Amino acid sequence: MAKNLTPRATDYSKWYNELVIQADLAENSGVRGCMVIKPHGYAIWEGMQAELDRRFKETGHVNAYFPLFIPKSYFSKEAAHVDGFAKECAVVTHYRLKTAPDGKGVVVDEDAKLEEELIVRPTSETIIWDTYRGWVQSYRDLPILVNQWANVVRWEMRTRLFLRTAEFLWQEGHTAHATREEAIAEAEQMLEVYAEFAENVLAIPVVRGVKTANERFAGALETYCIEALMQDGKALQAGTSHFLGQNFAKAFDVKFQDRDGEVKHVWATSWGVSTRLMGALVMTHSDDNGLVLPPKLAPIQVVIVPIYRGEEELDAVSVVAKQLVADLRAQGVRVKYDDRDTYKPGWKFNEYELKGVPLRVAIGPRDLANGVVELARRDTLTKETVPVEGLAASVPSRLAEIQQALYDRALAHREANMHSVNSWAEFESALDAGGFVSAHWDGTPETEERIKELTKATIRCIPLNNVLEDGVCVLTGAPSKQRVLFARAY
Amino acid sequence: MAKNLTPRATDYSKWYNELVIQADLAENSGVRGCMVIKPHGYAIWEGMQAELDRRFKETGHVNAYFPLFIPKSYFSKEAAHVDGFAKECAVVTHYRLKTAPDGKGVVVDEDAKLEEELIVRPTSETIIWDTYRGWVQSYRDLPILVNQWANVVRWEMRTRLFLRTAEFLWQEGHTAHATREEAIAEAEQMLEVYAEFAENVLAIPVVRGVKTANERFAGALETYCIEALMQDGKALQAGTSHFLGQNFAKAFDVKFQDRDGEVKHVWATSWGVSTRLMGALVMTHSDDNGLVLPPKLAPIQVVIVPIYRGEEELDAVSVVAKQLVADLRAQGVRVKYDDRDTYKPGWKFNEYELKGVPLRVAIGPRDLANGVVELARRDTLTKETVPVEGLAASVPSRLAEIQQALYDRALAHREANMHSVNSWAEFESALDAGGFVSAHWDGTPETEERIKELTKATIRCIPLNNVLEDGVCVLTGAPSKQRVLFARAY
Repeated sequence: MAKNLTPRATDYSKWYNELVIQADLAENSGVRGCMVIKPHGYAIWEGMQAELDRRFKETGHVNAYFPLFIPKSYFSKEAAHVDGFAKECAVVTHYRLKTAPDGKGVVVDEDAKLEEELIVRPTSETIIWDTYRGWVQSYRDLPILVNQWANVVRWEMRTRLFLRTAEFLWQEGHTAHATREEAIAEAEQMLEVYAEFAENVLAIPVVRGVKTANERFAGALETYCIEALMQDGKALQAGTSHFLGQNFAKAFDVKFQDRDGEVKHVWATSWGVSTRLMGALVMTHSDDNGLVLPPKLAPIQVVIVPIYRGEEELDAVSVVAKQLVADLRAQGVRVKYDDRDTYKPGWKFNEYELKGVPLRVAIGPRDLANGVVELARRDTLTKETVPVEGLAASVPSRLAEIQQALYDRALAHREANMHSVNSWAEFESALDAGGFVSAHWDGTPETEERIKELTKATIRCIPLNNVLEDGVCVLTGAPSKQRVLFARAY
Repeated sequence: MAKNLTPRATDYSKWYNELVIQADLAENSGVRGCMVIKPHGYAIWEGMQAELDRRFKETGHVNAYFPLFIPKSYFSKEAAHVDGFAKECAVVTHYRLKTAPDGKGVVVDEDAKLEEELIVRPTSETIIWDTYRGWVQSYRDLPILVNQWANVVRWEMRTRLFLRTAEFLWQEGHTAHATREEAIAEAEQMLEVYAEFAENVLAIPVVRGVKTANERFAGALETYCIEALMQDGKALQAGTSHFLGQNFAKAFDVKFQDRDGEVKHVWATSWGVSTRLMGALVMTHSDDNGLVLPPKLAPIQVVIVPIYRGEEELDAVSVVAKQLVADLRAQGVRVKYDDRDTYKPGWKFNEYELKGVPLRVAIGPRDLANGVVELARRDTLTKETVPVEGLAASVPSRLAEIQQALYDRALAHREANMHSVNSWAEFESALDAGGFVSAHWDGTPETEERIKELTKATIRCIPLNNVLEDGVCVLTGAPSKQRVLFARAY
């Protein structure tokens, strides 16, 4: 286990905070609540972006960019949005600094006060729907299938790297449709895009579901979500897709002339995932030795470390190592040969273990003589001696095997922590054990709220394709037609 | 020529503004000075990003992300930076809204005033160097070769789409080095990366040079730049790379222990290009019919338009069109088959001409019978009838030919507008004719300033690899050792 890393069993939260910093993923900045995403963390995020962006484009979407600032008055236009949305926002009030009277430093120029304050976007529905008004006249202008990669700001009081930061990076899709059915199909399609991405790229199994009315996005008629289970038994919402009905179209007066000649309001969706997924990734796969990365997202998939004394040995090892690098690159494997002489092999082993490189190859002079190398696998921490001959050719399938093993392990963990309960006593003890709790609920916001007060558990979702069954609410005993998933959550 | 587009000869500035909007590149938003980059414009920017990002990574750089906000006090830490940098910045003073007393809309919560105001980054040297302090202890931690893709805000009073907007997108590289020589080599390398990108991807010939002391970035010891010439004879700065010396390292106390055991300050560079390049692209290649795009950046390189009456003819045309699409895709060509029945072929021809698609293929029933199609080339507006057989195979070389032709045309225009002058009269008339004016200057900031007052021309750069020659300043007659490039500029 890593020397300075608190074990998960001792303090899971501390382990997470330390790991994010020690693995060089991110760190706190001099600005309260805003993080610096370090190169290793950003490279993983770039991997996520590339995989998502490809999926968005394959489903017909295009990217665009909308302003960072939103006039304050825009927020008041959609009633549910302004009521429901957190008002913790960064507010721009002035547009100029000036040299301080004492000549040292700068002060805000009070003469440069904005007539209307600007809000740094916490989400972009309002500015985007204000824009769409000009883009839509006819059914021929629909659908609009637009996504934006952007930074957003929500002034959180208690922040944690990746999980909850004042500024974070995300993508937000905003689509406009001629019919209700088409908009719902879009929201559902994008949920499935997220779910497939989470399972096949992040190697995180997710439950697909819809939120209760209480937990819906402010302004949405339906919020679809994917929910994942972390190692400590807490749930994490990994992505949401909203069917917005005609709420924003009405608030921003976005209408079109349909094929039948009638003028109608447009139907909308929005959907997003964020750098929060970095937190989900860490808390699904990593261990007491550091980060464990699914090969599809690992910036370095294979690292080669030479073991040598003196330049002559290094030269001999390098011949083999460089050939291996070339063979791996030819197969599209991301490989690094770390022949720095400023660090010892033991330091390097530790470093790449901490940073989650899936496969490590060590080559020493004795290995050379035997035509073998030492191959270490990060997820299982196992080592084997393998012939150099044929190694490169075997790497893609080894990486695929690791990818699958991570998913299987996470799925087994989730299944072991999926509790189906029928009484309040069972409900409480299952929650304390950790994991998802599948229980009957009477369908009222009051009961949902009361359960949250009593246990800190929320309804994570009503699973899609839920099997209907008669039962009684675990709290009130009132009749219920289906189970919903409760959990304590990030 | 396009119906609603003002010809360049009538009003170049109006032509530009209209074209950016009509070609769906960008538009003004409801937020003063902030633009919406529309999907077609954003797709071109994504092309630029991909090409640049690949070059940055090939030269050893990695991406990271730093906070949007910078504490006001950070700006005061580097004296030249705070003095020289524009103080037109967006200032965040509060972090919460609340419901208005009358219950309608929201107002700023005066109780939520920040202790220290935050500035929306106009550039990130200060926050990044504050961060680097924690990253560097030893020579083994150097160099740091980091780039960031980000939005930045400078509160410009007079804005124009892409050329000067309050918010714009850019990349900013920030590197840290152990020696002066290495930092200078980095700044020069990145200038060359920009120049090669401008010439080979944007098809824009550029002059590589250094800025005079007056025109340097605030805090830089040397500012390298590439300068391009627009069709109207005005220059445009297309990218800059700064050697920052130890100014920021000293201001933010970034030191390292060198191999020799001594503790030293780190050496720095920064370099950036922005969405301004979109403006340069438009003003270098486009014409009175609309946008002209270099094939390497065209989101659609070939569009296929069917000419037909009735479904039967469309079906017959579509068989050939779809095979052509498949053959082109197989060669990596970005192709679109526009078989929408909601628009007529004439409308489509006009649309793709306006949007700058390099090659247009039209296929009608008579063509089918003859085994030919009509192929139109956007840059020359020429049409030819070519056999379907072999067409797909010829497209990559046709696109390469267009790419080269655009560069050659732009270079010819620049060479025709490069005036070498030796007297004040010649200087003034050359400036009025438009273009770069190569002239002797006495090397003083006072003369530079005076020439700017008299003519609105600035020294765009002192070309790299300038040939030294004795001469006299065109304004003062004082001795000079080399010519510099003047121009009126964007």
